[in-house]
Amino acid sequence: MKELVQGLLRGEERALARAISLVEDRDPRAKELIERAFPHTGGAYRLGITGPPGVGKSTIVDRLVPLLQESHGRTAILACDPSSPFSEGALLGDRIRMRGIDQREGVFIRSMATRGALGGLARATHEAAFLLEAAGFELIIFETIGVGQAEVEIVEAADTVVVVLTPQSGDAIQAMKAGLMEIADILVVNKSDQGGADAALQNLESALSLSSRDWRPPVIRAAAEDGEGIPELAKALARHRQYLEGGPLLERRRGRLRAFLKRIIAEELERQLWDERGLEALNGKVEALLERRAGPHQVAEEILREIGR
Amino acid sequence: MKELVQGLLRGEERALARAISLVEDRDPRAKELIERAFPHTGGAYRLGITGPPGVGKSTIVDRLVPLLQESHGRTAILACDPSSPFSEGALLGDRIRMRGIDQREGVFIRSMATRGALGGLARATHEAAFLLEAAGFELIIFETIGVGQAEVEIVEAADTVVVVLTPQSGDAIQAMKAGLMEIADILVVNKSDQGGADAALQNLESALSLSSRDWRPPVIRAAAEDGEGIPELAKALARHRQYLEGGPLLERRRGRLRAFLKRIIAEELERQLWDERGLEALNGKVEALLERRAGPHQVAEEILREIGR
Repeated sequence: MKELVQGLLRGEERALARAISLVEDRDPRAKELIERAFPHTGGAYRLGITGPPGVGKSTIVDRLVPLLQESHGRTAILACDPSSPFSEGALLGDRIRMRGIDQREGVFIRSMATRGALGGLARATHEAAFLLEAAGFELIIFETIGVGQAEVEIVEAADTVVVVLTPQSGDAIQAMKAGLMEIADILVVNKSDQGGADAALQNLESALSLSSRDWRPPVIRAAAEDGEGIPELAKALARHRQYLEGGPLLERRRGRLRAFLKRIIAEELERQLWDERGLEALNGKVEALLERRAGPHQVAEEILREIGR
Repeated sequence: MKELVQGLLRGEERALARAISLVEDRDPRAKELIERAFPHTGGAYRLGITGPPGVGKSTIVDRLVPLLQESHGRTAILACDPSSPFSEGALLGDRIRMRGIDQREGVFIRSMATRGALGGLARATHEAAFLLEAAGFELIIFETIGVGQAEVEIVEAADTVVVVLTPQSGDAIQAMKAGLMEIADILVVNKSDQGGADAALQNLESALSLSSRDWRPPVIRAAAEDGEGIPELAKALARHRQYLEGGPLLERRRGRLRAFLKRIIAEELERQLWDERGLEALNGKVEALLERRAGPHQVAEEILREIGR
C-alpha cells in the first residue's frame, strides 16, 4: 500500500492504473488508498461531457484536448458507460484504441466500469478523480455515453458540464424534458452541418431565456469532425471557469463533497445493517410477506424495530 | 385512496394507471397503496425480456403476446428504459404508439420512468408489478431497453428471464462478460437470417455447457420479424414455467421479496439519517473535507458517531 501510494503521488501511470482498479473492484484496500490520497486532491479542473449516444462526444473531446492541454497541463479522460456493462468491454476498448489522442504525451485515458450495485459507477468515477488529482493531473474530463440518471450522477463530479446534442431527432426538446438543461453549463449543437441546426439553436436559446440561473449557458454550433466550433467551445470553457473561480466554485465543490459523504455513509450503514443479526431478522420476516400475512412496509418497520434502529 | 384501491382491485385501467403514477412519482400515498394492494398480489406469471438496444425485443414481445395470452389471460407489458430518461418521453411513446398489440383486448402497456435516484426505476417497476397483480393481471412482461445493472435489477422481478442477442457484433461474448448468462433462463438469437447465426448459437451453447446450473437455458434461433422462432420461444417458456412450479419458483419469489425488503429498509434508514440533526452534522463536517484536514472515510465515521449510529 505504501509503495502504491508513493507511486501514485509521483504520478506513475502504473500505480495510478492499479489504484483505479482497486476502486473499481471495491477492494477493501480502496478505503485506505482514498484516505491517503485525499490530502493531495482538489487541484484539477474537472470537465464533464455528456449527451445521448451518437452525438459525437468522443470527437469533441479528441479535438478539444489539444487546445486545453496548453493552458491546463496534464490531462486525463475517464470514459464511463453506466448504461451498459454489456458493451463496455469491447466497445469502449475499441473506441479508446481508435482515438488519436491516446498516444499523445500527457493524456491518460481510462474506461470506467463496475458490475456492482447501481450508483457504484458514479462512486468509482468520483474516487478515480481523487486518485488522478493526487497523481498530479490538472485537467480531468468525464465523458459519459448516454444520458440518464447514472450519467447525471457522474457529471456531478465535474466543475463544468457540457451537454452535447444534435439538430436531429428532437434532441433539444428531449433534453429539456430530461432535466439536462438544469445541469448544463455549456450546450453544444454538434453535427450542425447536417441541417436543422438553426431551429435547434433557436429552440435551445428560447428555452434558456426562461431560466433564472446566474450563469446563462452559451449554446455553441459545432461540426466537430471538421473542427468547427471547437475553439468557441474552448473559449466558453475558459469563461465558465473564470465565472466559477469568481465565487461559485467553492459552493459547487462543497456540494460535491457533501454528496460524496452522504453516499459513503449510506453504504456503510447498509453494510452494518445486514450483519448476521440483521439478516436473521430479514429472513425470519420474509415468510410473512411470502404468505401475504403482512405488507412490505409493515414488515420493514418490524425488522427495523427488531434490530433496534 | 379507498376509491383508488377499490378501482384497482376491480381491475379498472384508469385506477391502475393512476396507481402506477403514484408509485413512479414516489408520492407519499404510494406506501399505503402498496400495503393495501399487497394481500391481492402474487397471482401473475412474470416474464422479463432484456438485451442490448436494437436486437428486436419489442418485436419479439409483440409476436409472443398473442401466443401467450390464450394460456395466461390478462396481459400487461411494462416497458422500462433505465439508461435514458432522456429518450424516454418520445422514444418509448413512439414505440408504444407503433405497436400493433396496443389496441388488443386485455393487453395493458405502460412505459416506466423515474427521474429520482438510481435504483428508483427498479423499485417503481417492482411496485407496479404488485399493482398489476392486484388488478388481476395474470401475465406481466418486463421489457427493458439496454442491458446494464439497472436492467438486471428490473428483470430480477421476473420469474423467467429471456435474454435476446443477435449474431452480430460479438453480442454473445459480451453477454458472457457482463454476467448476462447468469441471469438468463432462455436465450434468443434474433435476426438469425442476417448471417453468423450458426457461430453465435455454437458459442452460446458451448458457454452454457460449462454451467453447473440446475436448469440449462435453451438457446433459440429466431427471426422475429418473420415470426420465426416465436412458437419455439413460447414452448421454452412453458417448459421453464413447469420447471419453476416443480419447486424453484418459491425460492425465487422468496429471494425477490427479500431483495425488495432490503431496498425499502435501506431507503427508510437513509430518510431517517438525513433529518435536521443528521444534516447539521454533515454540513458541520464537510468543511474539514473541503479544507483537506481529514479524509472522507474518517469524516464519515465521525458523522455516524455524532448522530449515534
